[in-house]
Amino acid sequence: MQPNNIFSKITFIASLFLCSYILLFHFVFSFEDIGAKLQEILNEAKKATLEPLPESNKLLTLQKSMFVKTPINMSKEQIELGKILYFDSRLSGNKLLSCNSCHNIALYGSSFVDIGKEKLNAPTLFNSLFNDAAHYKGDISRFDKEDSVIPAKNVVARASLHALSAENEMNADTKKIVSMITESSEYMSYFKRAYGVKVKVNAELIALSLSSFILTLNTFSRYDDFLAGNLRAMSVEEADGMRVFINRGCVACHNGVGLGGTMQPFEVMKNYKYSSIGGMTSNIDKMLKVPTLRNITLTAPYFHNGAIHKLEDAIQEMGNIQLGINLSNKEAKQIMIFFETLRGQVEITIPQLPKL
Amino acid sequence: MQPNNIFSKITFIASLFLCSYILLFHFVFSFEDIGAKLQEILNEAKKATLEPLPESNKLLTLQKSMFVKTPINMSKEQIELGKILYFDSRLSGNKLLSCNSCHNIALYGSSFVDIGKEKLNAPTLFNSLFNDAAHYKGDISRFDKEDSVIPAKNVVARASLHALSAENEMNADTKKIVSMITESSEYMSYFKRAYGVKVKVNAELIALSLSSFILTLNTFSRYDDFLAGNLRAMSVEEADGMRVFINRGCVACHNGVGLGGTMQPFEVMKNYKYSSIGGMTSNIDKMLKVPTLRNITLTAPYFHNGAIHKLEDAIQEMGNIQLGINLSNKEAKQIMIFFETLRGQVEITIPQLPKL
Repeated sequence: MQPNNIFSKITFIASLFLCSYILLFHFVFSFEDIGAKLQEILNEAKKATLEPLPESNKLLTLQKSMFVKTPINMSKEQIELGKILYFDSRLSGNKLLSCNSCHNIALYGSSFVDIGKEKLNAPTLFNSLFNDAAHYKGDISRFDKEDSVIPAKNVVARASLHALSAENEMNADTKKIVSMITESSEYMSYFKRAYGVKVKVNAELIALSLSSFILTLNTFSRYDDFLAGNLRAMSVEEADGMRVFINRGCVACHNGVGLGGTMQPFEVMKNYKYSSIGGMTSNIDKMLKVPTLRNITLTAPYFHNGAIHKLEDAIQEMGNIQLGINLSNKEAKQIMIFFETLRGQVEITIPQLPKL
Repeated sequence: MQPNNIFSKITFIASLFLCSYILLFHFVFSFEDIGAKLQEILNEAKKATLEPLPESNKLLTLQKSMFVKTPINMSKEQIELGKILYFDSRLSGNKLLSCNSCHNIALYGSSFVDIGKEKLNAPTLFNSLFNDAAHYKGDISRFDKEDSVIPAKNVVARASLHALSAENEMNADTKKIVSMITESSEYMSYFKRAYGVKVKVNAELIALSLSSFILTLNTFSRYDDFLAGNLRAMSVEEADGMRVFINRGCVACHNGVGLGGTMQPFEVMKNYKYSSIGGMTSNIDKMLKVPTLRNITLTAPYFHNGAIHKLEDAIQEMGNIQLGINLSNKEAKQIMIFFETLRGQVEITIPQLPKL
């Protein structure tokens, strides 16, 4: 039995090597396969001009470009003051609403308004640095002519100025806000720290300060990592979902850094089924601001009136009315899986408001 | 001139020594004087049974004592879950109000309700660990008999349970809240992390979790340092103000750790001039919960209807209606200066709410 035993041992070890080799070959091959596929999808994304959030230095330059010819240079003190103003409900007419009441940081800068209410479902303010326009109908556009101390392209500051006195937003008298602030030595100390002791508080400076905080609410995500070239940042399923998103044409409107933020025709192929419900009337051009898709899985319900609660329904509705296609349940699900990669985070400590 | 010169030098040096000695004696004497005075005021405060916030270990023991026979042990995960629930406006009937809408962390846990509204000015939730009762009229009291899984003395958890469905608070159907949470795998992951995988979510557990967060909102202040024996924590003016506060009798109701929190007779000597305005009707016994004075300089306007905006007016009104005395402007000012020492801080990072 001795030789036989040796022979069987040799056979066993040889088989072991062979198996290992086959397995190894298989893994390397399939890894290469996956890597190649992800690279291919990344190339498609780039071809479709999808863009990651700029890295922090470029982001800061972009933020600062919103404040040309204004006193703002995005200093820590200015952003902190903007944050205080953002949370201050005493700036509103009834003293109970702050920016954060509707553009709730805990809800990724959005609100949760249900269908049937005469209120608009406030869109997220996160990543609004990349928006061409403010408000659903784009009443405030970066392409408006310059006619204020606030640069036209800083639509967030202009919308903030509007929100302070707008009846369906903060509903306040800006003169009263200004005197409330100037009469508070504690509030003034924050303004002085931000803008120097000679600061003159007015509604425009309040709006600019607010926007200096809001424009920092940008959320880096795995999607950005992927677009920056890190193929491991997305799973194959997620990348597949992005491919469906691109190939089925969603990217026609949801593009750029924000995957939205531009004005585009709405109800291109069909009418949105809940169009007539909620506080928005369509304008002549039927143009609408494309909402950003960043953090979309967390900002339900959807559309101006919050009529649609499930993201898959919102995806299918958009395929229907904008592209004239029926996205299958599977496709909607795939796109949703991709949307998970758009989830980011901000870390905001609540300020304690100054004494009046 | 030589001797004369020497003589003048000696005279000069001698005068210098003498002056230094006098100045030194004066300073030491006045320092001793100030120290003795502050010590004397501290003794008066102790005699008046004023109490500092307990140190952190004792505070934790006190917090835990609110959860006997419940699943809560004040773990980090439980408090974090409580915080998520505190900020979740989706728990309310109209999906727009969270605990934080009225008990606003940015406003030191209070709201800013003006006179004339049919709304109550929500009192601060900061330091409510030291309250005997919840609600102005003390509907919920730690002395109620035990009849729930929530311990009677945890008035914050019981008030939270009430607030979820109360028409003038969150106005929600608790069954709907429970199913909303249990249908969200992301929400459930927070509950599981806090209470184990077999957790059963119900309204009581939600309320208990909320209170585990709320009961951490305690604000250490210079006043606590002073009461703990650090005489440098208050200025002489502030200590003088505390002495007026004690000697004029304010301490009769505003005592204990919270400088308030017990039920006491209201309108003892006269009627509060704005009693009939706002959402509160007085009960038969005319008993009212004494609000905490901690952070009082930052929680304007004052009283159940926010009728009084200036703290000095509120102080004088209380002297008038409760003690039957006219506090002079100087005394009111002194008390206000003392109140500045009651100012503390909490640092809360806003949670990003789970996906539904």
